[in-house]
This record gives sequence, C-alpha cells and structure tokens, in this order.
Amino acid sequence: MNRRSFQPPYYAVIFISQLSDKTDGYAEMAQQMIELAHTMPGFLGFESAREQVGITVSFWRDEASIEHWRKQSQHRQAQKLGREQWYKNFQIHIARVERVKTHPE
Amino acid sequence: MNRRSFQPPYYAVIFISQLSDKTDGYAEMAQQMIELAHTMPGFLGFESAREQVGITVSFWRDEASIEHWRKQSQHRQAQKLGREQWYKNFQIHIARVERVKTHPE
Repeated sequence: MNRRSFQPPYYAVIFISQLSDKTDGYAEMAQQMIELAHTMPGFLGFESAREQVGITVSFWRDEASIEHWRKQSQHRQAQKLGREQWYKNFQIHIARVERVKTHPE
Repeated sequence: MNRRSFQPPYYAVIFISQLSDKTDGYAEMAQQMIELAHTMPGFLGFESAREQVGITVSFWRDEASIEHWRKQSQHRQAQKLGREQWYKNFQIHIARVERVKTHPE
C-alpha cells in the first residue's frame, strides 16, 4: 500500500463496480489505465480490490485533475467499453477528502 | 451492490488496510461490525473487497453520524483490537461526496 505524505484537502474517486460476463480485454485495459493514470497531472495514488464487487479508489490533487483524466482520449475509449461491455453496473462517487488518519502514524 | 437513492452531499469513510498475520477473531468481528453499522443513525451504505489490500467504503449522512459511529462502544473495542493485532497498517480517508454517477442510470 502506498504511503502518502500529502495532506487534505484532496479528492477521491470511489469507483464501485460489478463485472458482466463479457470481460474480454478488460484485464489488459485495466492495467493500461492504471499505468496511464500514474502519468496524469494531479494524480496522487491508487488502490484497488475485487471480490463480489470491485472497489477502486484513486486520489487526485483537485477537481480539475479529475476532469482532465476523465477526458483523456484513451481513458474515454476505456470508459466506453466499460459501459457497453465489461460492467454490469457501477457507481462513481467524487469526494473531497477532509481528514486522513494512518496507522502506524 | 446496493443501489442508492440518496443524493449528495453525503460522506464516505474510505478504509484501506493490510492485515497482519494475527487475524484470530477478525472475520467474526468484521461481520459483527457490518451488522452493527447498519443499525446506526445516518448509515447509508457499505461496500467491501479484499485482495492484496482491503478496501471498505461506508457512506454516512453527515460528519456527526461518522463521529457517533466512531465512538460506539463495541466499535471502539474492535478499533483497539484492529490497531493492536489485526492490521499491519491502515489509512482512513474521511470525504464529503459531492457528485455521484451510476450505470445503468
């Protein structure tokens, strides 16, 4: 797990999804998008886990960074495939992180 | 996955953790805490998944609801065991959800 030195406020994009049964190409694209996100301005960090649902949380400096990432052209293509094929359903919660606590401190 | 009808603003508690190798009693307590959280005032929803890291996101009406849950006595005991035994490390991000998008809409 990445240890973060940055302090609030920053932003979190909470992506909660269930996959469909049409996941051809999904794993490769997910890996590409993780790598691409790391190169984006304002990207602060990323965590992901999947069991019955998948939860991905990415952290961003501000809303402009999130908007810039949302509109990135390869990411747009991934979003389209996600909506049309890979995801049975998803929720995206855009949130402003106000406090953070870590253990050990 | 729970479908939510509530609208922003609301709050998310993003809990990202790695377990230690001392997890006796962890699974039972985690299940108890999920059930207890559902009874708390202001509780809106809960999602969880674990692979290399565990990510739990709980949703709350406001900060007062989160504070009330944080101080709940059985939850306090669980927190103490978590810090002392179960978790190698964790981060808690408290965030105000400003926008939400769902698919299908």
